[in-house]
Amino acid sequence: MAPGRGGYQQGLDAARIVFSARSALADFFGVTDSSRLIFTHSATESLNIAVNGLLKPGDHVVSSTMEHNALVRPLHLMRSRGVEVTFVGGQPDGSVRVADIAAALRPNTRLVALAHCSNVTGNLQPIAEIGRIAKKSGAYFLVDAAQSAGYFPIDVRELAIDLLAAPGHKGLFGPPGTGILALGPEVDLDPLLVGGTGSKASSPEQPEELPDRFESGTLNTPGIAGLLAGLEFVKEVGLQQIAAKEQQLVEQVLEGLRALPGAVVYGPAPGAERGNAISFNLAGQDPASIGFLLDRTYGISVRVGLHCAPDVHRTIGSYPAGTVRVSPGYFTSPEDIEYFLRALNEIDEKG
Amino acid sequence: MAPGRGGYQQGLDAARIVFSARSALADFFGVTDSSRLIFTHSATESLNIAVNGLLKPGDHVVSSTMEHNALVRPLHLMRSRGVEVTFVGGQPDGSVRVADIAAALRPNTRLVALAHCSNVTGNLQPIAEIGRIAKKSGAYFLVDAAQSAGYFPIDVRELAIDLLAAPGHKGLFGPPGTGILALGPEVDLDPLLVGGTGSKASSPEQPEELPDRFESGTLNTPGIAGLLAGLEFVKEVGLQQIAAKEQQLVEQVLEGLRALPGAVVYGPAPGAERGNAISFNLAGQDPASIGFLLDRTYGISVRVGLHCAPDVHRTIGSYPAGTVRVSPGYFTSPEDIEYFLRALNEIDEKG
Repeated sequence: MAPGRGGYQQGLDAARIVFSARSALADFFGVTDSSRLIFTHSATESLNIAVNGLLKPGDHVVSSTMEHNALVRPLHLMRSRGVEVTFVGGQPDGSVRVADIAAALRPNTRLVALAHCSNVTGNLQPIAEIGRIAKKSGAYFLVDAAQSAGYFPIDVRELAIDLLAAPGHKGLFGPPGTGILALGPEVDLDPLLVGGTGSKASSPEQPEELPDRFESGTLNTPGIAGLLAGLEFVKEVGLQQIAAKEQQLVEQVLEGLRALPGAVVYGPAPGAERGNAISFNLAGQDPASIGFLLDRTYGISVRVGLHCAPDVHRTIGSYPAGTVRVSPGYFTSPEDIEYFLRALNEIDEKG
Repeated sequence: MAPGRGGYQQGLDAARIVFSARSALADFFGVTDSSRLIFTHSATESLNIAVNGLLKPGDHVVSSTMEHNALVRPLHLMRSRGVEVTFVGGQPDGSVRVADIAAALRPNTRLVALAHCSNVTGNLQPIAEIGRIAKKSGAYFLVDAAQSAGYFPIDVRELAIDLLAAPGHKGLFGPPGTGILALGPEVDLDPLLVGGTGSKASSPEQPEELPDRFESGTLNTPGIAGLLAGLEFVKEVGLQQIAAKEQQLVEQVLEGLRALPGAVVYGPAPGAERGNAISFNLAGQDPASIGFLLDRTYGISVRVGLHCAPDVHRTIGSYPAGTVRVSPGYFTSPEDIEYFLRALNEIDEKG
């Protein structure tokens, strides 16, 4: 596939796919001006662009202890450049309280930044309320939708989200190497990467025009085509259908875990709206060895340990060993979950 | 394909492909320690990481007027942060003289940065000599190999290259969305992007370990697998065979252009070793309309205008209209070139 920068037919065809993907994603997330839907290569890059581009020395940021290192590390780096950061403590059940965010706001708070859904516990944070108080206080609102985009409806206007970061390869069913950053109409960022954009080529300055300002170099056109196909799949099946099916599988896992003598389940109380990440441990067993047995004996892939989110484990009480995290997807079947629960039973009995 | 960060079998399989690709590319470019071969998403990202990570206020950089905006714009941005940059003037034939680079060196020159091969004119710059004088002066040497990696042999040790940036989707036959940055043993950079690396997860600091320090977030694993396949193709056919075939096509284009009454050809003198980018104009015709006719009437894709390299056109005398650039590749045939030259003849006659 042509890179999409040449003016010839093949290049225009590639540019057209990128344009279609941009329009479709903007529409999906309620971004009115599709030129403010930026293609990146990962949610991590999106978060770095947002944090680096917005914050100046003397600014204050409110975040939480429920964040992934993709947000924690850029914020931590900003501290060394004179930005103050408050990581509001999450509750032992993994939830972040609106009142705690509100109490952390200061006159110089320029940004409130947090994950919509925890990658460890599946907690769905109250972003609508947090968006409202951020807006009221004059702070920008950055949402890390790595675990929620494609699962839960996200309309940046309704949720007062100024910056939305999401990967392409999770709930949007795109390939790895794709991501997006949606910028609200009032957001003006410095770019993190500069270079050739195919526009304003005569100037050594990065162009002001969007999306070019944030899309230097050859785009991942095949990846973006794959992301468009993934989004079309999501729209065809329907967000509600996908979420309903996954929620049923999550309930099946949680019920099975509750029936398991040695299981300790972390995260939201039963019945709460939640994402499809479930963290647990088996009494007296190391999560790493549970993961090893599930993989080698049963062929089941789970991720164990800290999940690039150490503060989450400190918050829920599973630091430093971490947890076993299981995450059923749209293509998981109830039979798969039964098989998984039988495997866990065997491991628990032998443990 | 699994993202490659989980400890389970599928994740390890993906990590193994990434490891194989890293080892193969390191070997191909003479990088002794493969952990210093970083995967990026484009040569543009590689150049940004290099320039941002290395330069501090008060440093001086020597570059040239023959550079692509992928290098010009990051260096220009550094100027606003207190870095001094000298863009040594190229010759009207597009060459950069070693003596001019040497004359521009200062005691505080921390970096010499230039393209191995011009994306506009195909000039092959004398990087072996420039590498030697950079090393002697104590400056790091950054080479933008966007137009040369996969065409010309590049051994970072032999050429005294400290930082090598290359895209995956050009001469290495990988897909768009891939790139590399090779770091010499003495290079210590600050990362541009930070985030989850799957390593040292408990720390809010970016890990020191390579390659993790520069590879935050989910890698473009399918792209990297494609890049590995591309490199295997290059090795199977042989760099010399590829270059020989392309050089023959380049000669055929140049001969045809010399026979064309209205043609003005830019770049190296006939017979000089050169890359496969050829820039020309037809007297009295706008490059944009030549490109349009070639595309619409003949189905031939060329890129016209400034090619994201305005200073190159100022250097060779084709600013501001730019040139028509034609770039035969390994899969171009002599018959394709004949067809192209016949088309040009017709356009020249009508012009």
